[in-house]
Order: sequence, then structure tokens, then C-alpha cells
Amino acid sequence: MTASIQVTTNPAVQYVLRLGDTCLIAGQRLAEWSGRGPVLEEDIALSNMALDLVGQARALLTHASKLEGAGHDEDQLAFLRDERDFLNPTLVELPRGDFAVTVLRNAILATFLKQLWIRLQGSSDSELAGIAGKAVKEARYHQQHAADWVARLGDGTDESRRRMERALRDLWLYVAELFDADAVDEAAAASGLGPRWSDVQAAWTAEMDQILEGGKLQAPKLGAFRSDGKRGRHSEHMGYILAEMQHLQRSFPGGVW
Amino acid sequence: MTASIQVTTNPAVQYVLRLGDTCLIAGQRLAEWSGRGPVLEEDIALSNMALDLVGQARALLTHASKLEGAGHDEDQLAFLRDERDFLNPTLVELPRGDFAVTVLRNAILATFLKQLWIRLQGSSDSELAGIAGKAVKEARYHQQHAADWVARLGDGTDESRRRMERALRDLWLYVAELFDADAVDEAAAASGLGPRWSDVQAAWTAEMDQILEGGKLQAPKLGAFRSDGKRGRHSEHMGYILAEMQHLQRSFPGGVW
Repeated sequence: MTASIQVTTNPAVQYVLRLGDTCLIAGQRLAEWSGRGPVLEEDIALSNMALDLVGQARALLTHASKLEGAGHDEDQLAFLRDERDFLNPTLVELPRGDFAVTVLRNAILATFLKQLWIRLQGSSDSELAGIAGKAVKEARYHQQHAADWVARLGDGTDESRRRMERALRDLWLYVAELFDADAVDEAAAASGLGPRWSDVQAAWTAEMDQILEGGKLQAPKLGAFRSDGKRGRHSEHMGYILAEMQHLQRSFPGGVW
Repeated sequence: MTASIQVTTNPAVQYVLRLGDTCLIAGQRLAEWSGRGPVLEEDIALSNMALDLVGQARALLTHASKLEGAGHDEDQLAFLRDERDFLNPTLVELPRGDFAVTVLRNAILATFLKQLWIRLQGSSDSELAGIAGKAVKEARYHQQHAADWVARLGDGTDESRRRMERALRDLWLYVAELFDADAVDEAAAASGLGPRWSDVQAAWTAEMDQILEGGKLQAPKLGAFRSDGKRGRHSEHMGYILAEMQHLQRSFPGGVW
């Protein structure tokens, strides 16, 4: 087994890592649908979205490794960090669940990323702005795709509606974390690296309300519970994702077996 | 559980199904690397190739369903046929193995498909010719990617060479089947639907020799053993692939759960 790497606590690096890890873990979860989609068209669509997310993660981790300047490359950041050093919000690591969970999580995440990418196009970090410019197009498509399914399932059969309502109740617990600002975010907003979460949240809420309305659904209230994956405190599901994802590199460092 | 569907024995339908199933099962196997690739770049490349193959499969199964005219759509063909009605050669259903097996199988298959697509562009079936025209570009890229890895691993470390030699020994048993002609193939050659396998094999052999040479490897002799997946007689691995792939549709027919 290869030793784990430690990453700097520099706020700009942490900010980019959070976003990179969000895309990476979301991409992993979505890729689980490959070969298991309900119909071939959807299998291909979900796999394509997973690939977009992993591609975004790769660009972000490459950029984080440059900002860090410690000689770690993007693969070391993906494959040799420990669970506590992954900085994705808990939402993206939850099990893929049924199709309602997948569709609703995609809608939540794509709307979040779209609103974030729109604003990051004006980031003081020109490389991050470039990544955002490409990614925003992908997020728009992901959002549209998810919104179509929310409408179809929310306003579909009794069974599909029941499942969407359950997904809404389960996933909504993890929404507040997305917009929780801490020192890393304050530093990013102050330096122009990233937007204020309150702006992103306002835009996200307006768009999500509309998407849910398409499925005759209503957003639950946000409760007091705060998940805390962004600071490395993950759910019990995270270890399994990392075991699967990191097994090869940890066993055969730098190799292909 | 949904009842299985039965497909006609019309040779033209069987011909297109064989090709569609080859792409579908190869795509399934390759998709297993999603989230488990040795490095992020390769993870993305293999996932992209899997998607190309599933996309080709979808076009071919759609076309087969039209030729059949029995009202089955491409999803029913993918998800509701029994093992004995899948007509892919055994090669593509073998477990994904280590990276050497994956790379070598990709080289064998991409070279085979490329040579086949080149010839199918002149098929008497204009829709099949159209599918081939698009797919040949993808196969060229897949072949190049695999050839690069064969060179890198075959002419790499002792370990990588040992693994490539083992992969060559194991996979070569399943090559002869690719070029075995039966009544379905004879009918296709006679009607101009598809090429003669002897022509495809000659071109394949010349290109594979060159690819292997790049890794300082040599093709084993083809033995007397003939696998027979093309006629629905599959290895013990096929059932597991189908269980995974068909579970959702069989349990919730036409649904998304």
C-alpha cells in the first residue's frame, strides 16, 4: 500500500479541491449507472454526464495541484488522499439510490454547479475562469436533462410520485451544506476567487422551485441539520467509494494493475 | 419478472444482431473500468470508448428491430432476450481481467471492427452503411489507443511484458470464432449485406501483427478450439453480465426503477 499524501490548508487550494472533489465523487456515483440504466438511451446519457463530471474534476485537481505547488499531480490528489482530506459536500457521496434519487440529486447538483460556474467565469483566477467557461455548458445540459425527468416522474404515476417525494425528503437534508460559508469561502469571496454563497443560493432556490413545480412538487423547508463533508467529515458511504476508486493505485502505485 | 422475447431467425436480422450484441457486451465490459481506471485520464478514455460501443450497439439494435418488424424496440432487444439469444462472440464477454487483458482485447476488437466497418460502408443495406460510416472513425481511435498501450506494456517492464504474454495466450483462444463463417454470414456475403470473413481476417491479421510487433510480441498460432458465442452458446460469464444489465428492466418492465 502506498502512503497517503497530505494537502496544504491554503484556502485557495482548499476552495478548488472542494469543487474538484464535488465533481469527482458525483461522477463516480453517476458512473455506477453504466450498464444498469433503465433504457439504453438513458444509460448513455447518465454515462456521458458522469464523464463530464470526471473531466471537470480532472481539470480542477490539475489546477489545485499547480496552486499547491507541492509536486502532487491530479492522480495523486484523486487516489492518494485519505477520506478526511476529501472536501466534497455529503450530498454527492450518498448512495445512488433508485432513479428518483439519481434524478433529483442531478437536478440539485447541476443547478448548483451551473450557478457557481456562471459566477466563476469572472473569477480572479483566470485558469479557474476558463474551466468554468467550459463546464457551464455541460451543467446547463445536465440541469435540463434532470429537470425533464423531475417533471416526468413527479407528475407521473402514483409510484413515481411517491418515490420522488421520498427522494426529496431524503436529499433535502443535505442541501444546506452546499451554501454554508466558512473561512475558505470568505477568503475566496474577499479575493474575488469565488462568489458569495448567498448569491448562489438565491439563484439556486429560484431555479429549483421552478424545476420542482414542473413535477408538481414542493421543496421541503431546510432544517437545522448540517452535514459537513466540505470539511472532511463524511458519511459512512464515503469509505466505500474511495476503496473502490483508490484500490488500484494504492496497491500498485503509479502502475496500471 | 417480464417474459423474455424471442427473435426471428431471419439471417439479415441475425447478422445485425450479432454485430449489435458484440458492441453492447464489449461496451458493458469496458464500462466496468469507470471509476476504477489506473489514472484519471485513462479512466475517462476507457469510459468514452465504452460509450462509443454502447452507442453503436443502440444504433444496430434499433436497426435490427426495424428489419425484424416484430414490434420489439432496441431496449427490448437489449433487456428482454435470454442468454441463448445473444449472438456476440465469446471474446467480448470474458471478464475484464487486468489492464493487459483489457488493452489486448481492445486491440483485437477495435482492429476487427475497424476492418468490418470499412467494408460495411459499402453494404447493400444503406442504413447499416450509414452506421458503419460513423463507427469506423470511432474504431480507428480505439485501435490507436489500444496499440499505444500494447507497445507500452509489451515493451515495458518484466512484469508488464509477462502480463501481456499471458493475456495473449488467454485471449487468442477466442480469435478464431470472429472469422468463422456460417449460413448467416454466407447469406450476408451473397446479398452484399456484409463482407467475406476471409477478407476481414487477412486485413486484421496484417494489422494485428504490426500492433504486436510494436510491443515486441508475437501472435500465437490459432488452435483447433472454437468458441461459439455467435450462435448463442456462451461461457459461464455471460449470465452474470446479463443479470447485471437486465435486472432493472426485468424487475420493472418499461420502468425506471
